[in-house]
Amino acid sequence: MTFKYNQVYLNATSTITGPYEAKGPFNKLYDKSYDNFYCGTKTWEQAESKMLVESVDILLAKKKKIKDEIDLHISGDLLNQIVSTNYASKTLGIPLIGIYSACSTSVLGLILGSNMIDSDQIKNCVVSVSSHNNGSEKQFRQPVEYGGPKRKTATFTVTGAASAYLSREQSPIKIESATIGKVVDLGIKDPYHMGAAMAPSAASTIFQHLEEMNRDISYYDLVLTGDLGIYGKKILKEYMRVEYHIDLKNYDDSACMIYDLENQPVYAGGSGPACLPLVVYSYLLDKMRKKEIKKVLLVATGALLSPTMTNQKLSIPSISHAISLEVQDDLS
Amino acid sequence: MTFKYNQVYLNATSTITGPYEAKGPFNKLYDKSYDNFYCGTKTWEQAESKMLVESVDILLAKKKKIKDEIDLHISGDLLNQIVSTNYASKTLGIPLIGIYSACSTSVLGLILGSNMIDSDQIKNCVVSVSSHNNGSEKQFRQPVEYGGPKRKTATFTVTGAASAYLSREQSPIKIESATIGKVVDLGIKDPYHMGAAMAPSAASTIFQHLEEMNRDISYYDLVLTGDLGIYGKKILKEYMRVEYHIDLKNYDDSACMIYDLENQPVYAGGSGPACLPLVVYSYLLDKMRKKEIKKVLLVATGALLSPTMTNQKLSIPSISHAISLEVQDDLS
Repeated sequence: MTFKYNQVYLNATSTITGPYEAKGPFNKLYDKSYDNFYCGTKTWEQAESKMLVESVDILLAKKKKIKDEIDLHISGDLLNQIVSTNYASKTLGIPLIGIYSACSTSVLGLILGSNMIDSDQIKNCVVSVSSHNNGSEKQFRQPVEYGGPKRKTATFTVTGAASAYLSREQSPIKIESATIGKVVDLGIKDPYHMGAAMAPSAASTIFQHLEEMNRDISYYDLVLTGDLGIYGKKILKEYMRVEYHIDLKNYDDSACMIYDLENQPVYAGGSGPACLPLVVYSYLLDKMRKKEIKKVLLVATGALLSPTMTNQKLSIPSISHAISLEVQDDLS
Repeated sequence: MTFKYNQVYLNATSTITGPYEAKGPFNKLYDKSYDNFYCGTKTWEQAESKMLVESVDILLAKKKKIKDEIDLHISGDLLNQIVSTNYASKTLGIPLIGIYSACSTSVLGLILGSNMIDSDQIKNCVVSVSSHNNGSEKQFRQPVEYGGPKRKTATFTVTGAASAYLSREQSPIKIESATIGKVVDLGIKDPYHMGAAMAPSAASTIFQHLEEMNRDISYYDLVLTGDLGIYGKKILKEYMRVEYHIDLKNYDDSACMIYDLENQPVYAGGSGPACLPLVVYSYLLDKMRKKEIKKVLLVATGALLSPTMTNQKLSIPSISHAISLEVQDDLS
């Protein structure tokens, strides 16, 4: 399902990271980074929730707004019962739409907010996501303390939180259109190869978006997927070519950008709901504001992995959502 | 945040239940009931997902629609990573918005769908929820086989799935307005007394709705909460009176209606995301179509319970969302 927007702008963003991201290439572009996984709390889950609260606080300070001036908070994360979001929300006190779409949550949130702003149902909203490496590993795979080796196809869940402020107030980054994807499952069962599970869903959503917008892939200066990683990225390019006869030329993947893949122990790259927005809200928006890149299709990729279902020998379904950002030439 | 709708109708609904609900008072009003917890599958989670798929199939058959004619599916459930929804979605193949708001999910889904239909962004949508007694008990409390006794304040998670078809097509039940609630937490830590955790959030949302719609509580023929249970229901009435000076006269709670509380072993009543919609889509809509009740405020109550966070000695945050349904006099 594709939506075309008339007047929705991404007015401001905020980013907070953990220690590994702070050693990555976009280090200087983040608003705040912690040098440890606890962020002054006693548990990883509480640390993630704290980062989420702080990302909203930093965002609102940038916009000079107080919480009572925000119509809606749309947020989600990877933890069971999206607890980072829900526990953050009791501190924030903004009406909440809680969403779960694994690592495609960031774009799903931006779409829900854009729809309500474009139709004037709300005047503004904050869209947030978070993830935490240790909290995720513990929940989805093995206790971190176990220290088991991983295959090269595994990804490293990003620790951090990111928030965006959306409204009809004109600013350089316009949200132009968006596509809500379908769940796709080609039978991958390996929780250490999420890129393979997600690539077909990214392809499906990109194709659906281009069809419904009646657009060629060359319309975009950049297509940026969320967290396919170096192997998933290759699979997507190949799959798009063979299945849809589309050549993904101006294409990259956030998972391959957020860390120094040569020198950091992150396997095939980053992952987690915070991966894509941390790259977009630091590096990419900077490029767009400088007008080096003008039209971007963000494709957030979500592996709907569940330990319960993988224990039942079921495969991993995936979903991807896409959103198109454009620089407004006449706005500085 | 409150929304007022011009043209959104609840055109059709479907209901599927497990064995305990089939022995309850609305037995003859459900579309389908299973006499066991497996529903022909090998696991409780797969059973829940199967009921969700079937509820959509039954709904679409009633509307004489095929899946390709549905713009969006908005769905959520109680299981980690909302797996009932996500695994159902790979069978359904409809663009998916996955949401998590615990037992307030049904109304949150109806609100998201209503917003998009009222603004003409989509022409129709299906909004679903599901829950499963054994699957939930295993995940949130104790293995069912353990057979431990429970306190009287505990509730019994409903097994079932419910779906609704929304569009601008005029029909007797109009969706009139809605309110997205805030997370409230007054410090309850007892996972066997969810009614106490949720009552203040129900009160907050009812008050917010009346304020923002500039309405007296007497506007509604019935206020129906989701799953407070017999003790939570009493707490809400008392809390509304003391805190907001509102007398909840025409008030009931789905948890107290879905089972035969005298003769079924369900403690303080039902709970789970499916509890409210099963009561509404069977008993209540029947009453409304007969014009015995004309104006209803549904208040779905969600305890954002997380075993991880209760193990960390944190209290249970709650959120409630409200939606107003009205019978259209001029439509039969």
